[in-house]
This record gives sequence, structure tokens and C-alpha cells, in this order.
Amino acid sequence: MTRFALTLEYDGTPFFGLQRQATGPSVQQAVEEAAARVTGETVTLRAAGRTDTGVHALAMRAHLDIVKAIEPFRLMEALNAHLRPNPVAVLACEVVADDWHARFSCIGRAYEYRIANRRAPLTLEANRAWQVPQPLDAEAMHEAAQALVGTHDFTTFRSVQCQAASPVKTLDQISVRREQEHVIVAAAARSFLHHQVRSMVGCLALVGMGRWRIGQVAEALEARDRQALGLNAPPHGLYFMRAVYPGEG
Amino acid sequence: MTRFALTLEYDGTPFFGLQRQATGPSVQQAVEEAAARVTGETVTLRAAGRTDTGVHALAMRAHLDIVKAIEPFRLMEALNAHLRPNPVAVLACEVVADDWHARFSCIGRAYEYRIANRRAPLTLEANRAWQVPQPLDAEAMHEAAQALVGTHDFTTFRSVQCQAASPVKTLDQISVRREQEHVIVAAAARSFLHHQVRSMVGCLALVGMGRWRIGQVAEALEARDRQALGLNAPPHGLYFMRAVYPGEG
Repeated sequence: MTRFALTLEYDGTPFFGLQRQATGPSVQQAVEEAAARVTGETVTLRAAGRTDTGVHALAMRAHLDIVKAIEPFRLMEALNAHLRPNPVAVLACEVVADDWHARFSCIGRAYEYRIANRRAPLTLEANRAWQVPQPLDAEAMHEAAQALVGTHDFTTFRSVQCQAASPVKTLDQISVRREQEHVIVAAAARSFLHHQVRSMVGCLALVGMGRWRIGQVAEALEARDRQALGLNAPPHGLYFMRAVYPGEG
Repeated sequence: MTRFALTLEYDGTPFFGLQRQATGPSVQQAVEEAAARVTGETVTLRAAGRTDTGVHALAMRAHLDIVKAIEPFRLMEALNAHLRPNPVAVLACEVVADDWHARFSCIGRAYEYRIANRRAPLTLEANRAWQVPQPLDAEAMHEAAQALVGTHDFTTFRSVQCQAASPVKTLDQISVRREQEHVIVAAAARSFLHHQVRSMVGCLALVGMGRWRIGQVAEALEARDRQALGLNAPPHGLYFMRAVYPGEG
């Protein structure tokens, strides 16, 4: 048996999230079925994160175990061939140690959230960004976001379906920047609660619109109450950007 | 009657090009039908360029004449509402003089061609870029492209369906740059022949792959023969970027 680490890019639009669901197609199912066709084996994909319906990934990390002898480059090419026409691509494939685990070995995760700050509906970027027509003050959003950095009880920013044992997480970094008509929120942590990034972005957008004062984000955090959440941003603006492992860049 | 100039953005994927076709949906038909619903009038859209099936636009300019009294901002909003779910958006709308013509007044057009230079199939960028798996030398492509600048007989780079009276055009600028895994070709001219940008990009890609010498692009141009064309790049990497009018920027 050989363990392979994969770097996956996907368009989350047609999937019911990354994880296998009884209700519809998932990224996991697409990759596992491709791997089964390549190897003749029943394989299980384990991923660094569990992205929701409509959430995208530029570099999700995952692993699978294969008995058949196959070179990593050939496995990548074969998976990509069999993944068509699913919008999932294997960007990299390498052999890792048997105890390397895409989820449990991961020590850092980074997301970006893409807001298209414009009045006109989206065309080329439909399902790729959250369209917000009101002008956003990205600097105010950045300032408000800094209250979230550090170790906190993030109950306010946690989905009621979240399965994490504790609502306490450490947010290492969050920044908000403007790039022409886009406002990009970047966040990094060891791990996140379910809906945490989308919930933080929703509240920051309220600050950007001038509907919340900068200090209200800190107040919402301190409330430790889901009812204090102003707005949950939609999934299609969210991108899983990077997973970090010990000994990697 | 008031003449309105529109700035249009569209995803060309579902359309049989910009211009109205008997064979299927077009951007022109989508906009004209939206305008008819807004005004109750039969309107004709005139555009700066005629993009093909699958070709996109970030800022196509066009005009239409409306009898009903309506403010430009309200017209834009109403068109956008009625254009849904077509991937066409009106980014700007202004009143122009009755003799302003989106096509005939236009004195400059700019296109960009987007190549995704990677081995893995495209997911989020499917139908938004041309995937070229062989490593491309963007500097060699840029150097080769400079032979195309100036006034030339572009017969080699002209579709057999091209309706222009003359194959002689003046290419003002062409540049090739790398942005991480993308290679972007930007071209500007008063006007282009049918398929000219895609044909130029196809030959430049051959140079980038090392299958053509840098000098072969100049040789293909001098041949003035469609048979000398090495490769026509596919439509889905092409974007209409900008139309220029007297007295504007």
C-alpha cells in the first residue's frame, strides 16, 4: 500500500460540498470514483478541510491509499483523465509516509473570500464571488477584522451544525484588501469552525457598508451568541487556498 | 428618440456570438429582448465589435435608440433586471449624440487572450482560458509578436469567412506577459480582421512551445497565405477589453 497526497483544485458549484453526501454529488465521490476506475480498488479520500456546497478550492490537500503499484505522475494524469467532466483537477501528487494524514497532520489552513463590489450582476464571475452592490470601505473592514485575531470563543461565528468539540479557535491572521472592484478577505488559522470564515466576512461586510460601526465586530465576538451574527456571507465567494503541514514551506 | 451608449460585460460561453444568428442565442438578441421588455419598443443593438461563439467581453461598447423617456441609470438597472439569467451585464449607460455610433465612431479596439499554461485540466477557469500543457516561453512569444506590429497584409491571420474589404490592417500594439501560470497576449488596433487575434495567438503559442522559431511568425505574415497559419487559438481564451472613441480617455 502506498499513500499519495493530492493537491486538488475544484469549482464547488455543482457539488454538495467536498465530503460524500447521500443527497448528491460531492468532490470526494468524484475523486474516489476516478481512483476506483484507475486502480480497480475501493479507495477513501481524506481531505484537509470540509468545504460546503458551492465553496471552491485552489489547493485542497487530500490523501488516499492505493495497493496497485503506480507512479505519482501517472496516477495524477489518470485521475485527471477520469475526473472529466467534473470540475475537479489534481494539480500535484506525491508519495507520503503512511502516517501522513491530510486532515490530522495539517497545522494550518488558509481561505480567501472574494467580494465583487459592484452594482451590475456578475457574468464571468457568477458563482465565483459574492456580489455586493453597496460601496464597501475595505480599510474599515480591515480595521474591524483585527479584533478577531487571536484565541477566542467564536460561538457567534459558528454554524449551529458545527461538530467541533470546542468553539475556541485561534485566528492567526485576517486581512481585507481592495483590488479594483474586488474586496478580498484572507484568513489563516490552524483550523476553523463550520461557517466561521463566511460568518466573519458577513459581519465585516456590514462594517464595509457602514451599517455596523467598526467596534461592533468585537462586540459580536464578545457576545458568544449566534444571534449576534449580523450576516452569513454566501458560499460561492469562498476559496480554500492552502493547507500547511510540518516540514513544508 | 435618445441614443444610449452601453458598456457590456458577458460570458460568451452560451452564445452563438455577439451578433444575432438564426442558429441560436446571441448577446444581441438577449439585450434587444431585455430592451423591448423595458420600453415596449423594437430596438436594434449596434456594437463596436463582433465577437464569435465563446468569446467574452469585459467592456464591449454598443448603442441603441429609445423613444420612451428614461434616465440612463434607470435604463441600465432595468436592462440588468431583464437580462437575467443571461450572463450579460450592463456596466455603464450614458446618453450620447445621435450621430455617435458604437461601431463606426470607434477608433480603437483592444483584446486580451488568456492562456492557462498548465498540465492539469481547468476547473474554475473552464471556458475562460485556453489550456496549453507544454511550457511556454512568454519572452520568445513577445519577441516574435513584435514582427506583427505596424501596417501589414494580414491574410495569413484572417478567417476565410472574413467580410472586411481589405486584408490590410494596422496593429498598434501586441505584448505577451506571464502572470504565474498564465500567459496573456494583449493586442490593440483600430480594427481587426475576423479571427486575427486568435490566429496571431495560435502562431505565438507555437513559438512559445519551441515548435516554431521566433522568425517564423514574420515569415507566416509575409506569406500572405492562410495555409501558412500554424494554429488558430480556440475562442474561449479571448476577451474584448476596450473600445476607444474620439474625445474619450
